[in-house]
Amino acid sequence: MTTLAITGGRVLLPDATITRADVLIDQDAGEILQIGPDLDGDETLDGSDALVTPGFVNGHCHVAMSLLRGYADDKPLENWLREDIWPAEAQLTDEDIRAGAELGVLEMIKSGTTAFADMYFEVPEIAAAVEEAGVRARLGHGIVTVAKDEEEAREDAETSLEIAREYDGAADGRISAAFMPHSLTTVGEEYLAEYVPRAREAGIPIHYHANETSEEVTPIVEERGVRPLAYAAEKGMLDSQDFVAHGVHVDESEIQLLAEAGTGVIHCPASNMKLASGMAPVQRMLEAGVTVGLGTDGAASNNDLSMLDEARDAAMLGKLAAEDASAVPAESVVELVTRGSADALGLESGRLEQGAPADLAVIDLDAPHLTPRYDLVSHLAYAAAASDVRHTVCDGRVLMRDREVLTLEEASVLSRAREAAADLRTRLED
Amino acid sequence: MTTLAITGGRVLLPDATITRADVLIDQDAGEILQIGPDLDGDETLDGSDALVTPGFVNGHCHVAMSLLRGYADDKPLENWLREDIWPAEAQLTDEDIRAGAELGVLEMIKSGTTAFADMYFEVPEIAAAVEEAGVRARLGHGIVTVAKDEEEAREDAETSLEIAREYDGAADGRISAAFMPHSLTTVGEEYLAEYVPRAREAGIPIHYHANETSEEVTPIVEERGVRPLAYAAEKGMLDSQDFVAHGVHVDESEIQLLAEAGTGVIHCPASNMKLASGMAPVQRMLEAGVTVGLGTDGAASNNDLSMLDEARDAAMLGKLAAEDASAVPAESVVELVTRGSADALGLESGRLEQGAPADLAVIDLDAPHLTPRYDLVSHLAYAAAASDVRHTVCDGRVLMRDREVLTLEEASVLSRAREAAADLRTRLED
Ligand SMILES: [Zn+2]
Ligand SMILES: [Zn+2]
Repeated sequence: MTTLAITGGRVLLPDATITRADVLIDQDAGEILQIGPDLDGDETLDGSDALVTPGFVNGHCHVAMSLLRGYADDKPLENWLREDIWPAEAQLTDEDIRAGAELGVLEMIKSGTTAFADMYFEVPEIAAAVEEAGVRARLGHGIVTVAKDEEEAREDAETSLEIAREYDGAADGRISAAFMPHSLTTVGEEYLAEYVPRAREAGIPIHYHANETSEEVTPIVEERGVRPLAYAAEKGMLDSQDFVAHGVHVDESEIQLLAEAGTGVIHCPASNMKLASGMAPVQRMLEAGVTVGLGTDGAASNNDLSMLDEARDAAMLGKLAAEDASAVPAESVVELVTRGSADALGLESGRLEQGAPADLAVIDLDAPHLTPRYDLVSHLAYAAAASDVRHTVCDGRVLMRDREVLTLEEASVLSRAREAAADLRTRLED
Repeated sequence: MTTLAITGGRVLLPDATITRADVLIDQDAGEILQIGPDLDGDETLDGSDALVTPGFVNGHCHVAMSLLRGYADDKPLENWLREDIWPAEAQLTDEDIRAGAELGVLEMIKSGTTAFADMYFEVPEIAAAVEEAGVRARLGHGIVTVAKDEEEAREDAETSLEIAREYDGAADGRISAAFMPHSLTTVGEEYLAEYVPRAREAGIPIHYHANETSEEVTPIVEERGVRPLAYAAEKGMLDSQDFVAHGVHVDESEIQLLAEAGTGVIHCPASNMKLASGMAPVQRMLEAGVTVGLGTDGAASNNDLSMLDEARDAAMLGKLAAEDASAVPAESVVELVTRGSADALGLESGRLEQGAPADLAVIDLDAPHLTPRYDLVSHLAYAAAASDVRHTVCDGRVLMRDREVLTLEEASVLSRAREAAADLRTRLED
């Protein structure tokens, strides 16, 4: 057994208390062996003047869109998609997607994220980046059937199902998969009726965008006479394994459906603000017992992939939505960004305890913006930044040590992304 | 003449365009001499792979409250003030205020802020920190007369006026001052009637909190039959030199008053979200021609002093408030955080051009979250973080070089702040 010890730090425990302790990891099993005083390992990471937290879990992303970061901003969702994002995506090569995925995963590791859920196309490229980088991911191929003929639409749905079957359990189990209809309005009812049961039979969870904008809710209510998540339930898409992104415009009946079904909701506060989609009722969902996690959405609507930013945004926006400064407090968002997202995605990570996956981040506390130290949970929620992450460990393997990423070569990833972006712009201008 | 050259970078110009250029500074005059190719100085700062921006201007702060960062969170404004903040503030010694001010100014320099407006008490301690650190500030003593007898109330108002007279022009002109009634509801009408004209005669601007919460607006409307800013205008507190913090709950008539008077509004998006105060109509104010700047408010309600965070928050919240993703775009917030705040505070900084004050920040672009580079203004608004600031220059003097602050000793400032916080907690628990 090869062991890794993180020594001299403080550890954030599952009950949100913080204790001075070392963490000992079984690197072969990728598990936490022990949390306690004076632990020695074959390898050591310095945890002094630092807080050891569970690795952050990004519950909803389109990681390859990191290549489109800053490409188009400040536009309403529909225009932004139709005028900028979709034309650009139509030009992306496999190499571009690989470059974008590596760029995004690099940023994740540097900001303490050890797992994410991702919806995109050319999933093999994204899986290759995940495998190389050493993080965990629940991957899937996003299906859009509107504006496609039946053959194309069916091919899209088949691809999503095949990809999910092929990649579930890949990369020594670090990669899992989901069936991913893009949303309830962009995938035709006949395809949901056919493919959702097939995914369910194969034991594959379903991940989709739901109730992101009011424009997405209205047509379903008008055409079907039910709220979107009631329609999703009819289609068998509201299982305890499943998780939806956004859930901004959910009413009380839908909150009850989510809570009863055990379906996860991935709240994406930055994306919801940037696209002016609205404010999700996060405090209300938490009170109702809904499993809530956090996600960045793609870098084009955020524009970064830092889950510490997302935690702060969730606390801030949650208070505004509830009109109550005590809503969505620091402890809540710290839980959402770790265990909340992990639970929604069906991962065992997100908690530091014996036997849990050794997925963690070590946050340097020696900085003006983290001084003084009345309450480290408050600092994690409101003041810590991506650049404070000192080390990142996933599945027992050190992915970043003292800000140096060990599994990806940072300079090459950045230069490949810059070249791919320059080429893309040239192609788009032609 | 001693000169400083920032070489090899790109420069953000006042028209929001970006050009590859060097910047030459006259350090004796504290002014920009030239922006152009191939400039040499006696001293050089490396600007390669970086963006040179105006130093950020924090338009509203209580810098010494950095000592209370994370002391109490997640409470409604009134309870937070009465149960936590005011009792803690009552225990602060002069040394605590100095320690808190140095901590806050250190964080500002490390995040590219070169000027700020501050309202607090024991202003000489804050001025000493500003003088030592080399930044600019418009300082003032905050007046509260409610719940005080006449003698105490009068003493508070006199102090604010005296401090403003004494400190205006201090530290070789880097310190300016303002008369600072805390707000329209916490200072009695009789004191405003007496002291505002005296401040005006002395040529001293007035800075106060206004329309932060709806609870603050209602009593003025009920008792006086006019909106708060109409009342402020009656009292002579709506001059082109003056600036108000927050302006969340302003109606169209007040927006017109602000625009016509030329009174600045310092928008504090993070504080407004964290205290669930509401959403300021920033896009509407900009359209009406109001001078808008950005501020962090105190670190206890934020919880950091990074103006890059504030710019991102302002863009995000401004879209949500306007229900329009095209509202408060990247160029707007970049302007708000530089020239907008500077104009509101009556400072000449906030723009990079020949003859302007040599107040600037150099932002390192070599990072995953700033890759690729379609649009650097977008990156500045949405993706750049405090830790990306490489150098900070104020009044021609290098305050931070390669992340090392030269005017304050970081380790000492942090340890003094930690000790002061530990002592404060002990006193409060007794
Ligand atoms: Zn999405
Ligand atoms: Zn304030």
